[in-house]
Amino acid sequence: MEITFLGTGAGLPSKERNVTAIALSMLQELNEVWLFDCGEATQHQLLHTTIKPGKINKLFITHMHGDHIYGLPGFLSSRSFQAGTDRPLTIYGPEGIREFIQSALKLSYTRLTYPLTIIEIKEGLLLETEAIKVYTKKLAHGVPSYGFRIVEKDKPGELLVEKLKSNGIRPGPIYGEIKDNPSVTLEDGTIIDRHDFIGHPKKGRTISILGDTKYQAAHKEFVNNSDLFIHEATFAADKETLAADYFHSTNTQAAQLALDANCKQLILTHISSRYRLQEMDQFLEEAKQVFSNTFVAKDLSVFQL
Amino acid sequence: MEITFLGTGAGLPSKERNVTAIALSMLQELNEVWLFDCGEATQHQLLHTTIKPGKINKLFITHMHGDHIYGLPGFLSSRSFQAGTDRPLTIYGPEGIREFIQSALKLSYTRLTYPLTIIEIKEGLLLETEAIKVYTKKLAHGVPSYGFRIVEKDKPGELLVEKLKSNGIRPGPIYGEIKDNPSVTLEDGTIIDRHDFIGHPKKGRTISILGDTKYQAAHKEFVNNSDLFIHEATFAADKETLAADYFHSTNTQAAQLALDANCKQLILTHISSRYRLQEMDQFLEEAKQVFSNTFVAKDLSVFQL
Ligand SMILES: [Zn+2]
Ligand SMILES: [Zn+2]
Repeated sequence: MEITFLGTGAGLPSKERNVTAIALSMLQELNEVWLFDCGEATQHQLLHTTIKPGKINKLFITHMHGDHIYGLPGFLSSRSFQAGTDRPLTIYGPEGIREFIQSALKLSYTRLTYPLTIIEIKEGLLLETEAIKVYTKKLAHGVPSYGFRIVEKDKPGELLVEKLKSNGIRPGPIYGEIKDNPSVTLEDGTIIDRHDFIGHPKKGRTISILGDTKYQAAHKEFVNNSDLFIHEATFAADKETLAADYFHSTNTQAAQLALDANCKQLILTHISSRYRLQEMDQFLEEAKQVFSNTFVAKDLSVFQL
Repeated sequence: MEITFLGTGAGLPSKERNVTAIALSMLQELNEVWLFDCGEATQHQLLHTTIKPGKINKLFITHMHGDHIYGLPGFLSSRSFQAGTDRPLTIYGPEGIREFIQSALKLSYTRLTYPLTIIEIKEGLLLETEAIKVYTKKLAHGVPSYGFRIVEKDKPGELLVEKLKSNGIRPGPIYGEIKDNPSVTLEDGTIIDRHDFIGHPKKGRTISILGDTKYQAAHKEFVNNSDLFIHEATFAADKETLAADYFHSTNTQAAQLALDANCKQLILTHISSRYRLQEMDQFLEEAKQVFSNTFVAKDLSVFQL
């Protein structure tokens, strides 16, 4: 998995940071890329990455503030030129997302070439596939704002081929049978217990992404044990009151949540333009005092997981 | 007057050209800046100029295609942070522009701090002030698309102060009276004819801006005698059929119109991303063969008039 921060600013674009969008590439795992939020000029930011708009097949909107959605009509329209007709896209977002998209496309005479599904979200289990589950939770942002918890399912272990061979079982269809059944009886009557010939299951990873929100200790349960936790940090530590007034969080509040929720890694984004890039060392240091495995995203930062 | 090309591409943004927006600064003349079209990321392009969003008080939309309007919600929202409450903005655009703006602002919970007026336009005289007139004309683009002809009114000549002085008339309120009246009788009975003490009137300039359109010889009358003529040139000379099929024009068609309409200067914009910047010499040369005083705009090009 690879996470690309397309925009890491808050509210307004600046020369240093665009407004919010995060791409989660799961090309190896699922051959899919998911996008979280789509602020204005997200399609422009994508031009500076290797991500193909047609590969993005799911788009999650945390909330309806302009700095998180105004790039949608342009992204959707331009995707028609790159995705052809056979690459459906599903958008998950708060109430109003359907009207916003349909109004913009209709009034601009835009016909998409690909099937678009729009799903207005509620709290709970949002989607489940063979490989992954996504949960949502309402945050505290004045308007409906959702967090996303993406849980990769555990994968069964690999067949221990060398061990099978050294037990005299040669490669063939029998390998598939052993993998698929708790026990298999060979032609010679030997009973093979799968358990003895399968490695450890591969633990799925968990990524939690909280969009704009005031700090709430109660968010701890939702992001518990995340391998990667992405949280907004509009303000620095000394601006807790201001942050609360504007339904936003500070760097140290995000770090506290990462610590309390036993997360492995924290990435801060959605940084106010009052903080210039050259001030980020101090901004990061404040958070690290609370939770040491913290990073601050820049535009076009890429993290591997 | 100063014209800044904020975006000069067609349809899709590329790394070289953003989608369409043109700023006409008349700070010395009117203390106003007008914007023509507002493609996605126009507010981002403005960050690279000295133009203050709060100074933009009129915004003209040529047509409702996404590459000309998707930057509107972001521009309007961000302008609230810079313009305060006392800088009204008027938007002139085709039918649908009101619904597009109101839907985007409402669904993103955006309240503007300044008064916004939206006027859906028809052909004819669009607005007239003491200093300027703006006319519109429907072009040929498949969807309603308008051209704008901006006509600066002639300004009366300056008072010939030195001549007045050498005729023994000393500076004072009398100068204003002489300027404002065809003739004035001095205290000593002398009759002063304004005509003798006023310089030549200053001829107003005319700028014509045609948004997306197929070439039409009939557009000649509308742009006649323009000091500056801005025309789209999506394609090069060899793509006339393609251009017509897509309701667009070629570089040489635009040049032909400039020639036929007796314009003084032509600037080409809205260039397809199939043409890279390094190919622009040839692109320009083709147009110059037809109309020599032609320029091709790049993003952030500034022209003085
Ligand atoms: Zn935000
Ligand atoms: Zn266009």
